[in-house]
Amino acid sequence: MHAYRSHTCAELNKSNVGETVRLSGWVHRVRDHGGLLFIDLRDHYGVTQVMADPDSPVFAEIEKVRSEWCIRIDGNVLARDESLVNPKIPTGEIEVFIRDIEVLGKSEELPLMVFGEQEYPEETRLRYRYLDLRREKMQKNMVLRANMIQSIRKRMWDIGFNEYQTPIITASSPEGARDFLVPSRLHPGKFYALPQAPQQFKQLMMVSGFDKYFQIAPCFRDEDPRADRSPADFYQLDMEMSFVTQQDVFDTIAPVMAGVFEEFGGGRKVDPAHEWPQISYKDAAKWYGTDKPDLRNPIKMQDCSEHFRGSGFAIFASLLENEGTEIRAIPAPTGGSRKFCDRMNKFAQGEGLPGMGYIFWRDQGEGIEAAGPLAKNIGPERTEAIRQQLGLGVGDAAFFLGGKPKAFEGVAGKARTVIGEELGLIDKDRFAFAWIVDFPIYEKDEETGKIDFEHNPFSMPQGGMDALLSDPLSVKGYQYDLACNGYELVSGAIRNHKPEIMFKAFEIAGYGEDEVKKRFGGMVNAFQYGAPPHGGCAAGIDRMVMLLADEANIREVIMFPMNQRAEDLMMSAPSEPMAEQLMELGLRVIPQDQ
Amino acid sequence: MHAYRSHTCAELNKSNVGETVRLSGWVHRVRDHGGLLFIDLRDHYGVTQVMADPDSPVFAEIEKVRSEWCIRIDGNVLARDESLVNPKIPTGEIEVFIRDIEVLGKSEELPLMVFGEQEYPEETRLRYRYLDLRREKMQKNMVLRANMIQSIRKRMWDIGFNEYQTPIITASSPEGARDFLVPSRLHPGKFYALPQAPQQFKQLMMVSGFDKYFQIAPCFRDEDPRADRSPADFYQLDMEMSFVTQQDVFDTIAPVMAGVFEEFGGGRKVDPAHEWPQISYKDAAKWYGTDKPDLRNPIKMQDCSEHFRGSGFAIFASLLENEGTEIRAIPAPTGGSRKFCDRMNKFAQGEGLPGMGYIFWRDQGEGIEAAGPLAKNIGPERTEAIRQQLGLGVGDAAFFLGGKPKAFEGVAGKARTVIGEELGLIDKDRFAFAWIVDFPIYEKDEETGKIDFEHNPFSMPQGGMDALLSDPLSVKGYQYDLACNGYELVSGAIRNHKPEIMFKAFEIAGYGEDEVKKRFGGMVNAFQYGAPPHGGCAAGIDRMVMLLADEANIREVIMFPMNQRAEDLMMSAPSEPMAEQLMELGLRVIPQDQ
Repeated sequence: MHAYRSHTCAELNKSNVGETVRLSGWVHRVRDHGGLLFIDLRDHYGVTQVMADPDSPVFAEIEKVRSEWCIRIDGNVLARDESLVNPKIPTGEIEVFIRDIEVLGKSEELPLMVFGEQEYPEETRLRYRYLDLRREKMQKNMVLRANMIQSIRKRMWDIGFNEYQTPIITASSPEGARDFLVPSRLHPGKFYALPQAPQQFKQLMMVSGFDKYFQIAPCFRDEDPRADRSPADFYQLDMEMSFVTQQDVFDTIAPVMAGVFEEFGGGRKVDPAHEWPQISYKDAAKWYGTDKPDLRNPIKMQDCSEHFRGSGFAIFASLLENEGTEIRAIPAPTGGSRKFCDRMNKFAQGEGLPGMGYIFWRDQGEGIEAAGPLAKNIGPERTEAIRQQLGLGVGDAAFFLGGKPKAFEGVAGKARTVIGEELGLIDKDRFAFAWIVDFPIYEKDEETGKIDFEHNPFSMPQGGMDALLSDPLSVKGYQYDLACNGYELVSGAIRNHKPEIMFKAFEIAGYGEDEVKKRFGGMVNAFQYGAPPHGGCAAGIDRMVMLLADEANIREVIMFPMNQRAEDLMMSAPSEPMAEQLMELGLRVIPQDQ
Repeated sequence: MHAYRSHTCAELNKSNVGETVRLSGWVHRVRDHGGLLFIDLRDHYGVTQVMADPDSPVFAEIEKVRSEWCIRIDGNVLARDESLVNPKIPTGEIEVFIRDIEVLGKSEELPLMVFGEQEYPEETRLRYRYLDLRREKMQKNMVLRANMIQSIRKRMWDIGFNEYQTPIITASSPEGARDFLVPSRLHPGKFYALPQAPQQFKQLMMVSGFDKYFQIAPCFRDEDPRADRSPADFYQLDMEMSFVTQQDVFDTIAPVMAGVFEEFGGGRKVDPAHEWPQISYKDAAKWYGTDKPDLRNPIKMQDCSEHFRGSGFAIFASLLENEGTEIRAIPAPTGGSRKFCDRMNKFAQGEGLPGMGYIFWRDQGEGIEAAGPLAKNIGPERTEAIRQQLGLGVGDAAFFLGGKPKAFEGVAGKARTVIGEELGLIDKDRFAFAWIVDFPIYEKDEETGKIDFEHNPFSMPQGGMDALLSDPLSVKGYQYDLACNGYELVSGAIRNHKPEIMFKAFEIAGYGEDEVKKRFGGMVNAFQYGAPPHGGCAAGIDRMVMLLADEANIREVIMFPMNQRAEDLMMSAPSEPMAEQLMELGLRVIPQDQ
């Protein structure tokens, strides 16, 4: 017989009754039924009930075992009484009578219970991560993550993509966040950087003719930790393809994403890939107040300016006299009660606005009636016109925000979410996707008037050189995001592969040719030797697992995450270096005054 | 029609004749046959001949294109004349008459030709890696690498292993090489390290009950570059499993390795996995002079001490009077000529030895005759006994080295290789594998007398605690390597999962409990909470690709390698940091006097 096990703890069933078996695993739970000892023996695969009574030759030893000891047992498989069968687990029909036991690893008193649902502070969980990871939920999350990445790889291979590894110790990459630096020993005083993304390398591969690349790529940004952001390394499905248009990239990656969400979504509805809407950046802001809208929420905001222009509601009417202002309505179907409207108004005040005007419609036995102060001020005709525009009726409400869209759109988006949540309009069992397209290439700094890149400087401007030579602020890029349930899941672009257009694009943002060559030399040089049109995207792996596992904290889907202070308490990182290490690197630590 | 291509450059054949097609790719080669222009248009998938004559509406434009321009063409598929069919390429039956052309990316004058076999200095190739990678051999090597890793992943999944990612920005790992450090911004003066291998993390996963783990893991060692070693990041197939013995690990990983070598070995013979010999570390040194023997070489060295003890060959006879000395024979079948023997003798002198004694056997018409000075000195009886021990005959030779084995084994191993090579005894079309087992846990420093770990300190000693309490220097570990064709391909161990045995093992090597806890705290703490027996191994990915691609230089199998000075000339890494970066990290660069 094998030294440790003849079966896993999920394998035995009625067909094994009478066999002599060997199992290894952890003592999940011990129950003492008056001289009869039951142990739930757990391994990665499942749980098997093993038991002994004083007739067992090793009863005395079994009495000593405690929770989370790792043991091996030999025994006979017995059928359980019909009344004791547990149909919830595959091994529920049997139990194993213990004839021999070996303690493989004892356990000290546990700082964290594996059995049960007890909550522990995150610091405890991370310090004893190896125990935390034994818990059922964590095992499931990690296996989900592994299976999801496996599925992504298989899907990408199936459609002709090869996975190539790009350097991890390399030069600074132009993603705009802060780099992690790595001091060079062979070149003291010089530093490598860890890649924020393999952006330049994947574009270089396209220049090299590799045609279709992907990588489950480790990426590194030295950003302050958040619940949904790893303070160190995180993973992206990074992909790039040559000789493609924006639509080709969508047609390639959408079925992969949809397939993964269908496979691991646990039955939740996934919008079919070919039905994902393409919403312009501008419309997304207008309709949803964000460039990552949650389309499970049916609320779509609308411009209601005309109804308020010159109306009796002086605040909005005078607001609209300023250039660039607008009144936007947030329809709230089924929100038609004063109580609800007041609560939402308070919400807006909590977000720093003076409040949200509202109208709600009711029927107090005399047909439809519009209520709320706004309705009174603008009168019944305008109120009715608004109702018709928004398609609302009795029992519904609408909220109104006014001003320059950039100033209120953020809050409007939040209000849309809160209204949708509170009214139960959001289908929790659905993954709703939308492509956000037509991002502007540039934005103007309101204070300095300086034009800078709005997003990634490497996107191809729609209209090419001609567009750049006209009004830069109106130029859109072949740049896109994929939003899912309110999160940005994917981001990408068709790249600017023509050196002359690239230099012009940077020139508009105030970067001279020399600086571009210095900062992005590898890629810019390469483009001078026959670059193909190319584009691609990157999808956040950790974010995908979070959505699929329904977890709000990224640390629930990473095997060994750091804490929120970017420390690994289990491994003691970061730590003080040894003096000779610093010496070799030619570095000195500046004493901190704290 | 698609914006860039209706077909790839490998797709068209006779069945497409008459179709209007669109192709995109690079101008591989232009031939001007007196007003008739032929272009080999190349993409990732293949080459298609496209052509034009002055009848083409875009002939003038086509005349302008140069090597490595990226172009799109539209045209009609024509059948080639029977006499012009090129059976070597899939598109060899057709050519495309160009009706339209678009230049997608022009090229400056090339610093490196893609077409043809011209050699360039490595610095040129790395600086213009994006062009170098367009060459056929590099495309093949990179695709081989991608396919090999894909195959490894599929094989590991098929046998129940999950791939889990371990942290990259983490704490120093106990692999014994130099760490790359990463300064922490949130904790100025403290540093993370990049993992030399995920050793501790994979063991922690076993403690967490994950049972079967693997990862194509990026690893980092700040070592001086060599032809076969990356100066920065490299990849390992890292795996670990619980509740296993050494033989279980062999039975698991050997079929994976054999399968990969069969799949990508290009028809070269692969020794069947179940036939791979297990050779003790001691025997490997004795027979092959190395712990990574090349078993394609049939030469097996033998101890011939007894034949020289008290013999007329005074040098060996007196040598053998010292304790721990030995005379070792290297049989050299078919090496029986004075010329060859003298050359090998010179080789040994070049390696710093006084020379290698030899005997060779010939037949000058009067039956077998032993020749060479050694034979004369020891006389015919001893000479004949040697011949019989070694199983040699007419036309063969044997070489002899003497002294303390540790002093000559290295050269003996080299001599074995050179002899095998020169005599053509090595089957180049074979992958020969051997497990090397029973590594000693400790070694004694000859000078200081101090006992230290010979290899990895985390291996389980054979015999456990009892063995450690006897003679430590005789204790072997459950530790193993897999050798293939003279390279170490895999290294692994059954781990020491019992805290008390681990502390004892470290104590013998002079490390106190406190120091062990400080250096390997994460793992040692974890072992106190019910650790399972576990073991695994790691296989060098880059090395595997080198063997399969038959490349001696690791930079031929890595997409974007650094040069031998650990620089990336294309991306300008490493480079001077910005002052504010250093400030944020709390670091100062010490000025170098050079």
